[in-house]
Order: sequence, then C-alpha cells, then structure tokens
Amino acid sequence: MSTTITAAPGTPFIEITREFAAAPEQVLRAHTDPDLVVRWLGPHGMEMEILEFDARSGGGYHYVHRDDRGEYRFRGVFHTVSEDRIIQTFEFEGAPGEVTLESMTLIDLGGRTRIEGRSVFPSVEARDAAIESGMSAGITQSYERLDAVLA
Amino acid sequence: MSTTITAAPGTPFIEITREFAAAPEQVLRAHTDPDLVVRWLGPHGMEMEILEFDARSGGGYHYVHRDDRGEYRFRGVFHTVSEDRIIQTFEFEGAPGEVTLESMTLIDLGGRTRIEGRSVFPSVEARDAAIESGMSAGITQSYERLDAVLA
Repeated sequence: MSTTITAAPGTPFIEITREFAAAPEQVLRAHTDPDLVVRWLGPHGMEMEILEFDARSGGGYHYVHRDDRGEYRFRGVFHTVSEDRIIQTFEFEGAPGEVTLESMTLIDLGGRTRIEGRSVFPSVEARDAAIESGMSAGITQSYERLDAVLA
Repeated sequence: MSTTITAAPGTPFIEITREFAAAPEQVLRAHTDPDLVVRWLGPHGMEMEILEFDARSGGGYHYVHRDDRGEYRFRGVFHTVSEDRIIQTFEFEGAPGEVTLESMTLIDLGGRTRIEGRSVFPSVEARDAAIESGMSAGITQSYERLDAVLA
C-alpha cells in the first residue's frame, strides 16, 4: 500500500495518509509497545535503540537511530494516547528547540485501518528543511517495515 | 509595559513579545512555581485552580479557570523546561484534539527580561478562532497581573 505525503507550499504542515491490513488495535499497539516500535520505526538500514518509551498521555520517549554514518537522537512527550489518537511532541536533538507537534488518528475500515497523520513544524522553513532532509523516504520506508510487523 | 502580539494572516502562528522589570530567574520562577502561576495566569476576574503543575521537562499540567459564566479546563505537557526556555503543549478541553505547541524564550536585558513567545496552532483556522475568542486580551491581562507578582 502506498503512503501519501502532502506538504502544501508556504505552510508548516505535513499530512500523511496510509492504510494498513490490520485492525486499529493492532496498529495502535505497534505504535505504543516499544518491543514492536523498535522493529519498524526508521528507514531501511537504520538500527534503533530505545532509551525510554512510555506511550501514555503524559509519558515520554527517547531513542537513537544509528547507521554507518552516525547516530541521530530523538525525544518527545506524549500529550494524548487514546484508542484512536496519538498526539506527541518530536525533537531531533541535532536541531535543539525545533519541536514539532505530531498527531495521528486511526480510522477503522473494518479489518483494515487508515491512519491520518499531521505534523506541525515551528516554521515553514523548518518544515521545508525536514522535507529536504529526506523525511518522506524515512516515513515511507518505516511504514513498509510496519506492514511486515503487522503481517 | 506593553505586550506585542502578532498573528500574520494565513499562518497558524502567534508571536508574543513582552518585557518585565525583573531578572530572567524571577520571570522563569513565576512560570514554573504553581504558587506564583496561580496568582497571574488568566485574564482579570478569572479564578484559577491548579490540579497539577509539574514544570519540568517531561512533566504535565492541568488547571481550571472559572468566572461567573462557567469554567474552562486546560492541560498539557512540558517538552522542555530550561533556564532560558519553556516548550509545552496546550489544549483547551472544550476543543479536544486541537493542541497548540507553545514556546517561550527568556532574554536577559540586565535586570530586565524580554520574553519571546510563539504559539503554533494545528491549523490556520484554529489560530484564527483563538484570536476571535479574545485570546489577545487574556494574554495582555495575564502579563499585567504578572507585573504585579514580580513587583
């Protein structure tokens, strides 16, 4: 299945839509259980180490992605984790202070699930820089790996 | 001192600038100590009850504003609390899921402090609705009350 990523020019938003061949409970669990998250989050060829992952409203997370070029640290807090929605902050520690707010809604399609994600960047420039950095490929590849975890 | 509030048309941003006649440590403490926050946060005539206020990176807050027209509940999580910056989420429980990311930087002017705030709304429409609701007056009045707390 294909991932649709929309970044309207002149806005700080990225919108993401993707369907998965699994029920919403399974897709949610793959986003909240660190033993599952570690198997799919990040592009192909990236190794992930989770330092903290407490996916509850008010919890936090902290992880490292590593490849042969180096390591990339990320952290954030979960504002909301409910059965059909996750809202969290996201910060790449290489760009401290540039915090993104990410939300994801899970829609039950009856045996399948559509997720609708929205990332709100602190500025249009930060959004554009994220797109330039190859963020879209990272998202698309993560969801390909998530397909395999859900299968 | 006057509060400058900028809401550029067609963007989801609000920018706020204000100076205070106090050192950065005092201004920060007025934002992180719930016994002080309760004395100034909110417009004139609004009573505040704090249910939770843990102003540390990874902490959360939850409070109620009340006046003779009703009550308004707010909650969020602190992504960053450092000596010169606070980054937090903000949600009015009357509009669930519409979460704003707020950041504030404290700049030391030598005995005085300038704060530079930035609120990023989930959409341009949500930002416009906040402005329509009288948010600017609430901010301006809060900072007038904060002047008194700092004095």
